[in-house]
Amino acid sequence: MMKTLQDYIDKLNSLNFKEMYNGDFFLTWEKTDDELEAVFTLADALRFMREHNISTKVFESGLGISLFRDNSTRTRFSFASACNLLGLEVQDLDEGKSQIAHGETVRETANMISFMADVIGIRDDMYIGKGNAYMHDVADAVTEGNKAGILAQKPTLVNLQCDIDHPTQVMADMLHIIHEFGGVENLKGKKLAMTWAYSPSYGKPLSVPQGVIGLMTRFGMDVVLAHPEGYEVFPEVEAVAAENASKSGGSYTKTNDMKEAFQDADIVYPKSWAPFAAMEKRTDLYAKGDQAGIDALEKELLSQNAQHKDWACTEELMKTTKDGKALYLHCLPADITGVSCEEGEVDASVFDRYREPLYKEASFKPYIIAAMIFLAKFADPADILKKLDEKGTPRILK
Amino acid sequence: MMKTLQDYIDKLNSLNFKEMYNGDFFLTWEKTDDELEAVFTLADALRFMREHNISTKVFESGLGISLFRDNSTRTRFSFASACNLLGLEVQDLDEGKSQIAHGETVRETANMISFMADVIGIRDDMYIGKGNAYMHDVADAVTEGNKAGILAQKPTLVNLQCDIDHPTQVMADMLHIIHEFGGVENLKGKKLAMTWAYSPSYGKPLSVPQGVIGLMTRFGMDVVLAHPEGYEVFPEVEAVAAENASKSGGSYTKTNDMKEAFQDADIVYPKSWAPFAAMEKRTDLYAKGDQAGIDALEKELLSQNAQHKDWACTEELMKTTKDGKALYLHCLPADITGVSCEEGEVDASVFDRYREPLYKEASFKPYIIAAMIFLAKFADPADILKKLDEKGTPRILK
Amino acid sequence: MMKTLQDYIDKLNSLNFKEMYNGDFFLTWEKTDDELEAVFTLADALRFMREHNISTKVFESGLGISLFRDNSTRTRFSFASACNLLGLEVQDLDEGKSQIAHGETVRETANMISFMADVIGIRDDMYIGKGNAYMHDVADAVTEGNKAGILAQKPTLVNLQCDIDHPTQVMADMLHIIHEFGGVENLKGKKLAMTWAYSPSYGKPLSVPQGVIGLMTRFGMDVVLAHPEGYEVFPEVEAVAAENASKSGGSYTKTNDMKEAFQDADIVYPKSWAPFAAMEKRTDLYAKGDQAGIDALEKELLSQNAQHKDWACTEELMKTTKDGKALYLHCLPADITGVSCEEGEVDASVFDRYREPLYKEASFKPYIIAAMIFLAKFADPADILKKLDEKGTPRILK
Repeated sequence: MMKTLQDYIDKLNSLNFKEMYNGDFFLTWEKTDDELEAVFTLADALRFMREHNISTKVFESGLGISLFRDNSTRTRFSFASACNLLGLEVQDLDEGKSQIAHGETVRETANMISFMADVIGIRDDMYIGKGNAYMHDVADAVTEGNKAGILAQKPTLVNLQCDIDHPTQVMADMLHIIHEFGGVENLKGKKLAMTWAYSPSYGKPLSVPQGVIGLMTRFGMDVVLAHPEGYEVFPEVEAVAAENASKSGGSYTKTNDMKEAFQDADIVYPKSWAPFAAMEKRTDLYAKGDQAGIDALEKELLSQNAQHKDWACTEELMKTTKDGKALYLHCLPADITGVSCEEGEVDASVFDRYREPLYKEASFKPYIIAAMIFLAKFADPADILKKLDEKGTPRILK
Repeated sequence: MMKTLQDYIDKLNSLNFKEMYNGDFFLTWEKTDDELEAVFTLADALRFMREHNISTKVFESGLGISLFRDNSTRTRFSFASACNLLGLEVQDLDEGKSQIAHGETVRETANMISFMADVIGIRDDMYIGKGNAYMHDVADAVTEGNKAGILAQKPTLVNLQCDIDHPTQVMADMLHIIHEFGGVENLKGKKLAMTWAYSPSYGKPLSVPQGVIGLMTRFGMDVVLAHPEGYEVFPEVEAVAAENASKSGGSYTKTNDMKEAFQDADIVYPKSWAPFAAMEKRTDLYAKGDQAGIDALEKELLSQNAQHKDWACTEELMKTTKDGKALYLHCLPADITGVSCEEGEVDASVFDRYREPLYKEASFKPYIIAAMIFLAKFADPADILKKLDEKGTPRILK
Repeated sequence: MMKTLQDYIDKLNSLNFKEMYNGDFFLTWEKTDDELEAVFTLADALRFMREHNISTKVFESGLGISLFRDNSTRTRFSFASACNLLGLEVQDLDEGKSQIAHGETVRETANMISFMADVIGIRDDMYIGKGNAYMHDVADAVTEGNKAGILAQKPTLVNLQCDIDHPTQVMADMLHIIHEFGGVENLKGKKLAMTWAYSPSYGKPLSVPQGVIGLMTRFGMDVVLAHPEGYEVFPEVEAVAAENASKSGGSYTKTNDMKEAFQDADIVYPKSWAPFAAMEKRTDLYAKGDQAGIDALEKELLSQNAQHKDWACTEELMKTTKDGKALYLHCLPADITGVSCEEGEVDASVFDRYREPLYKEASFKPYIIAAMIFLAKFADPADILKKLDEKGTPRILK
């Protein structure tokens, strides 16, 4: 963490992130290095201010719309925390209570809810080819509405997890890594293993491993993706990872051997995901409304998983990492062997040992989201930070 | 839109709306012309201020209770937007989560939720004779509670749609018409056709056509209500419409011929609704808990509708309006032929052509609701606007 | 009510409640007399300020997490009102929408939702031995998280009803009694009858009678607990009551005779509750997931209740109280004979006569909750009140 708020302001002023003003945040690889660095810097600045009891409320009124098409605790609360920190009130679009079931188009709904919305956060990650596309439909609709004078402001879209990427999660993970290693410069040549892990629960989305390789290959690290055969991620994202690695002076490799990935790793991220092919199949079954097919597919997925129970982050495996002390990461909740399930992604003793850094990792997310919003709503965020500091309103009265 | 905020303040100061202070908003025809004009003026003033980044936050704390006994997207978000604009936090009374199921009386619930509530917004439109009555029960309960010193303030009741009227909707529609035609004075002698239209979906409430004829007959227009036989609206509301028209120098007529209504119309509002008699029958079946009966009635309604598929707002019909360019209105969501259904209320090409004005029409609703609240909470709203302007707090920090 | 805000400030400055800062509120008998008096004083002060249109907003941002594991209207709205009064935004943890079902530990969830939470309000009252324990798990988890630097602040835990006590309710009831009798000093020697009453609805929790005897024995009153055989409360709580009574110069007695309890009582609190043994049995059945067993138990409870239909607060019984005018209390909703049920806890005419004081009783709850939060978040609450008064920001703009 920097020493004074001015350090953060100076840092921001050294970066070029003009394109973020009035923009949206879909995928990390659509952003430049400076833009990502602006998010990290501003996230840390907002945290600095909150921890020094300086209010970062920049809105007197305004809504932050949340639209979750999948279960969530963490991200739902992170989004609400981020909005609240800035002065926005969360209004949830509950598709059960709305009239979307009666044939309302996406374009219409997006505009109808946005008259006083400054941000729309969407999680739509369950169906391949659908989630990210839906987010774009919404963003296009409100951009059009703003241009036509229907909406006085263009709500910024924040991707709270789609079928392709999970930017708020992996940006939080990355900021955590940067803090743990004392700066981006210390990451060059470090080995990061993003590995699959056994889980007894249903097919989890690909957006976390994809988000990790899509982002963390930009910092000069040697990123290894490891998984059993049949658990491939999108080739398009792998291409992004390879190009990132090349540009940043790092590397991107793959292996079907978890041990090989863990060997001398500085950072490990063992986490379950469903096979891409299965996720596509589920998307088709969903389109056909074939619930029986979806249930059958789930059984198939679970038994396929069960062939790889050895893909677990055990104490033995951790011992093979760099000095036996690699930084263990997880987006949570983890399937912890003997705690949340009989056999899972990670040994209980490993998870326990890393509990505090895992919670620290999670703590960055509200600030990452707040930073993404802030950078989209202000042309000169550094100047706004200065003004907040000068006002010096305490967050909690003293 | 006026040129400066002072124009709005002067306009308000020229009107007499004293009775609105500490009042409620149930039906538009319970309000005087000055009172309606105060709502329109204040709605425009609040919009002017928001578009000029002046905060209209008038509450440091306070709740806006929302109680929706029927699905809603638009009005739910409009109510939340209006409350948020003024500084009130929405708290939803979800009858599933509450103990209302355990025999709590309306009077008790109304008081129990209102200790720190400044406004209560209710939608209760599905059962004839019940909705508006329920709203009055709630308003009476909190008025009594305030008189007895139980509640420090009397929450103002805003009708978010009842079985009789839909004031927030039709006031927004009317303000849109006034803007589109450049002023009330330009409405004299204009022809407005409020017509039924075919819909493949279940019986929709009567409160929109009733709200339209109950309000829009006050501006000197020639208002025509058109529907097939069997789709009559409340005779009491028709009586109100006839009297309004007489007083305003306009007219109110009826026809069973959609073409006749559309002929040379300046404004058309084709929208489906259920037959009054059927809605009453559904109310009885609901009281008896006869779900099978309700389902059978729904089938009956749909087949009755299907006898009038020619009641659709087609391109051909639109060509017969004044210069072929009548203003097309809808409260949304519309049943769009070929888009939301096979055969619906309106041709896709007509809907498309009017999309922007339709969204503009909808954009007035949060401001109409905010104005209704404002006029009930402040004895001198014009003075409050002045103070907000002098404070000049930006809505979004700059 | 005191004459000026300074009276409340002086009162607070005369009390010692240092331990409440950064504390939690679980059970009233874990608090000292000064601490309880601080809650009463501050609740009245906050009410005084709100009724004089002085804003008591002490947070520019921050969340108040609500977690209700049982139905609620009153307490849900009271908690939201209290948070809103102070400037906190409520974020509900809906266990249906969250991932708690997927094996997430309490410790993890508690931290994941708390990054920007200043208070967590929990209702968990249905299962003996579980509710209060769960609240402690949550409070321990966030205390740990705060110590470890994961959470910048320690959210204060407010018990919104557990299996043992219902502090916000009984503190509100007590403050009402103090106001009705014109001061604590006037309570010495008054007789308070906390009696069971017949109800046709399912087993209600023991926390109200337990909370009443656990708190109201501290003021020198003669507290009588009355119930049919088989409806005993926790012996541990009775021991607390007996000790409280002894220290305060009052008394705590029991009887199986409702008439004896009502005889010459100054205050009566007739309310249904389920037999302790039955509630324990239900806890076991729940642990086993035995829904059929739970349904059977409910039938058993209802028929056991039905043997004591004479345990009703009738006009006849009220006549036997002190001057026939004992203060009738209820936490609401009551089972009112002939209104909410055929035969219930209280005659309709009795309930009607006491409606206003009953609503007044309820009106204290939001202020009690706000006071509990305030005392946990500020080391010098009296000084904060002074500052709020000096700022003099109006709650509603004038």
